[in-house]
Amino acid sequence: MALIPKSHPRFQSLLIREKLVKGFDDGLVAKEGLLAHGRGEAFDYILGEKTLKTAKKAIKAAAASILLAKNPVISVNGNVAALCPNEIVRLSKVSKAKIEVNLFYANEKRKEKIVKILKKNGAKEIFGVLKKNATRLIGIDSSRRIVDKNGIFASDLVIVPLEDGDRTLALRKAKKQVITFDLNPLSRTAQTANISIIDNVVRGIVELITECNRLSTKKSSELEKIINNFDNKKNLTHNVIEIKSNLSRRAKNA
Amino acid sequence: MALIPKSHPRFQSLLIREKLVKGFDDGLVAKEGLLAHGRGEAFDYILGEKTLKTAKKAIKAAAASILLAKNPVISVNGNVAALCPNEIVRLSKVSKAKIEVNLFYANEKRKEKIVKILKKNGAKEIFGVLKKNATRLIGIDSSRRIVDKNGIFASDLVIVPLEDGDRTLALRKAKKQVITFDLNPLSRTAQTANISIIDNVVRGIVELITECNRLSTKKSSELEKIINNFDNKKNLTHNVIEIKSNLSRRAKNA
Repeated sequence: MALIPKSHPRFQSLLIREKLVKGFDDGLVAKEGLLAHGRGEAFDYILGEKTLKTAKKAIKAAAASILLAKNPVISVNGNVAALCPNEIVRLSKVSKAKIEVNLFYANEKRKEKIVKILKKNGAKEIFGVLKKNATRLIGIDSSRRIVDKNGIFASDLVIVPLEDGDRTLALRKAKKQVITFDLNPLSRTAQTANISIIDNVVRGIVELITECNRLSTKKSSELEKIINNFDNKKNLTHNVIEIKSNLSRRAKNA
Repeated sequence: MALIPKSHPRFQSLLIREKLVKGFDDGLVAKEGLLAHGRGEAFDYILGEKTLKTAKKAIKAAAASILLAKNPVISVNGNVAALCPNEIVRLSKVSKAKIEVNLFYANEKRKEKIVKILKKNGAKEIFGVLKKNATRLIGIDSSRRIVDKNGIFASDLVIVPLEDGDRTLALRKAKKQVITFDLNPLSRTAQTANISIIDNVVRGIVELITECNRLSTKKSSELEKIINNFDNKKNLTHNVIEIKSNLSRRAKNA
């Protein structure tokens, strides 16, 4: 794509898009990933392309949950690897979470490229790679059902940025806590996860790293309090209210 | 993509997506077109994936304007050609509008494929193809500035489904009436066009054909009355109100 002038009102969004398109050209992102990113752009536009109050609340609760988890895992797909590989690795370090590659459209070559970019960004061990460790989650039709027996299968909490509804439900049924980044507060993923961060993953993951760092010195009882004070359904409803007022502001008289 | 069960709550949307992805595989659609379609899907989802009252009003005014125009032209890009080639040709017949191919990302091979699919669907003459007829519109940076001197350049009204803001503005500055299909009521295109149909082009174009047929027997004075009774800015504001109440309905308590 062409050079984007800094003065463009949606400069950041276009920069992120360029990263994604580069990821597609490099073989990290599937063509369905381009479509999904477009959907994300539109929802982010409607949010006002910023991290809203409800997202900050969800991020705080998510950080507390991750720090309390025994065996947290971050699930990575092509879009996430293209958009924020460095942040994924940083989040895994600060939260002691494993990283697992899990793709909707399975493709060994694409998986290799995703692993490579994560390692380039400092990841030591990556799950979801060895065939001998592959096992299945019940209730998913896509290739996302295949998980690592030492990764997602054994986990108690899974961080799933940019997720599909079926898998979120399957993970919940498998008694795992699910934390998701999703830009649509009405999506099945957002409605099904334990904690739904309605934010662009590129922005939200940086905040999540900061919160994990900040909360890492707190006692378990304090972290539990944060979690108990968070109501995901209520937060999603408030998010829709934020979106509506953003639309009103922009449409002036609406 | 896989077989979509008819029971899927977003069956129609997924069918449309399949058409677009096929268009990409066939070389009609650019990768940026996949992203753009994703954005459209999200905005359509927020509309409730149906033709709203405000869209119907805009379609009626659009039909009247097209029938009154001396030299209307339909501008076609890759996404439109992939999604509704047959409807484009039917609209051109019922409204006596020319068809011109005009691409944001110029590519002769892609243009040829677009021409081919339009001809396969019954188009006789297609503008924007002969190099000797190419001329420029002022105020556009992309290759969309190149237009046909016998097509868009000579027109008094241009129908631009799935448009970019820059070109809409340039067409207005060139004293052309602009009718657009856009799913984002706040976009520059929607805000700049004379008549903005906030609807999925796949649905809206069928309604537009019907309206052109229905109004084709009316007197000019009646058509003028329809146009004079239509206020695009007001209609867009009402559209945002429709979107907000759709969001409230879906979020229940928001």
